[in-house]
Amino acid sequence: MKVFIIGTGLIGGSFALDIQENYTEAKIFGVDKNPTHIKEAIAYGVIHEEATLEDLSKADIVFVTIPVDTTLGLLSNILDKVNDNTLVIDAGSTKQDICNSVKDHPKRRNFLASHPIAGTEFSGPTAAIKGLYKQKTNIICEVEKTAFKLQEKALEIFSKIGMRIRYMDPVSHDKHIAYVSHLSHISSFMLGKTVIEKEKNERDIFDMAGSGFESTVRLAKSSPAMWTPIFEQNKTNVIETLEEYIGNLQKFKTLMQQENFEAIYEEMENTNHIKNILNGIK
Amino acid sequence: MKVFIIGTGLIGGSFALDIQENYTEAKIFGVDKNPTHIKEAIAYGVIHEEATLEDLSKADIVFVTIPVDTTLGLLSNILDKVNDNTLVIDAGSTKQDICNSVKDHPKRRNFLASHPIAGTEFSGPTAAIKGLYKQKTNIICEVEKTAFKLQEKALEIFSKIGMRIRYMDPVSHDKHIAYVSHLSHISSFMLGKTVIEKEKNERDIFDMAGSGFESTVRLAKSSPAMWTPIFEQNKTNVIETLEEYIGNLQKFKTLMQQENFEAIYEEMENTNHIKNILNGIK
Repeated sequence: MKVFIIGTGLIGGSFALDIQENYTEAKIFGVDKNPTHIKEAIAYGVIHEEATLEDLSKADIVFVTIPVDTTLGLLSNILDKVNDNTLVIDAGSTKQDICNSVKDHPKRRNFLASHPIAGTEFSGPTAAIKGLYKQKTNIICEVEKTAFKLQEKALEIFSKIGMRIRYMDPVSHDKHIAYVSHLSHISSFMLGKTVIEKEKNERDIFDMAGSGFESTVRLAKSSPAMWTPIFEQNKTNVIETLEEYIGNLQKFKTLMQQENFEAIYEEMENTNHIKNILNGIK
Repeated sequence: MKVFIIGTGLIGGSFALDIQENYTEAKIFGVDKNPTHIKEAIAYGVIHEEATLEDLSKADIVFVTIPVDTTLGLLSNILDKVNDNTLVIDAGSTKQDICNSVKDHPKRRNFLASHPIAGTEFSGPTAAIKGLYKQKTNIICEVEKTAFKLQEKALEIFSKIGMRIRYMDPVSHDKHIAYVSHLSHISSFMLGKTVIEKEKNERDIFDMAGSGFESTVRLAKSSPAMWTPIFEQNKTNVIETLEEYIGNLQKFKTLMQQENFEAIYEEMENTNHIKNILNGIK
């Protein structure tokens, strides 16, 4: 089984490690425009060999794990190059534009649109983790547009590496993911920004920061190269979530100014309910 | 050594556990208006015996680990009741109002104003953790107003349980802690609120939530009874941080609307710098 990883970073690299674990006969080829990443990916045991897009005709499975703007530009091209039995899987955090970009492609049935909800705030091949996908959700979009046999092959891989599957249409995916993922990143980045701007004398002040600050600001370590195109492709939904978030913060501020601390208590109490929701998803 | 824990929750209970570990001769008395907490604290080995405020005259050390509004009302009263050699330590997340409330008290020198930067999003005696304070920062305010001998006693305890000490005046404490702690809590609560409001069909949607959402929303599990009075006492600073945070979010939204994704990239890249800061505090 020849597996091509296009983009040998955290997401692609972690897929490569899990596939090596579950398919000992698999040979992993890495395609990456960054030569350092290729070197690291080989040294780190993530891939076996470097390859180029021109080698794609010999691929059995292709993982497209690159920023979503690059996927948008490259996916048609990848489908052009693969053979009739190749399965091409993406892992982008947006689905509408990506699905649209290949909707009339003659090899549309070779493509499976997916979004594995997994990752860390780190990036590059050395951030790859064995078992990253275990018990994580993988959202598959437009499954009916993928050939039966290739659906089957993809589900076997996802099942072996321990993922739970959810099916969703791309429009709903992009709308909901804006709330449960994209907005979290912006809230975290802006929190980091607000505090850094204010606190010039860093060393002293960050001594005061506890685990609470650390966890809310964790996502502000994320890669701008990955996140900028996500926000761009999901612009409308992200702006909507931002408006609602800003509105809630403004309301909270007004309650503070009015010294209506009973209402503030209630706001927090109602949101405590998130405990049960988070327990439910574990 | 007779140690009184007023408020046998996460913070007081964790002090009690660490003191038992380091001072095997210590006898721990618990004072709590909630009888269930007392029962749990005894069953859980957090305290040895129930006591009341009337027993304070026999205390060697008193930890005041209750919500900051209750501390404000009770601290003078506690100082009235203790003897001349008793050390009274608070652990409130605000320091200005609390220090002010006892500034003219005849036993001011028995009081050490402190803010241990430690905790979890859970509360109550069963949330108490041995070792919670290890390598955590404790901010001590107005140390010069505490009697030398009692400063020494307090530092010995903090050192034995593994805390790092920072000294700060109450005004600076309240200003900076608004940024690195209080704002994080509001950003997290409002994130939780925004998502819950939007997503009625919870089960389905929260299946899409990954570890990123979970960590940014973790603080939204925090206790409203603890946090409402903190926001109340630190109102001016908290409103200022909220205004800056909202301003940054609005600017981000405007950049999105203008499709200025280069600027958005830069915003995130500049904030990535938080990595080094957070590494620095470890």
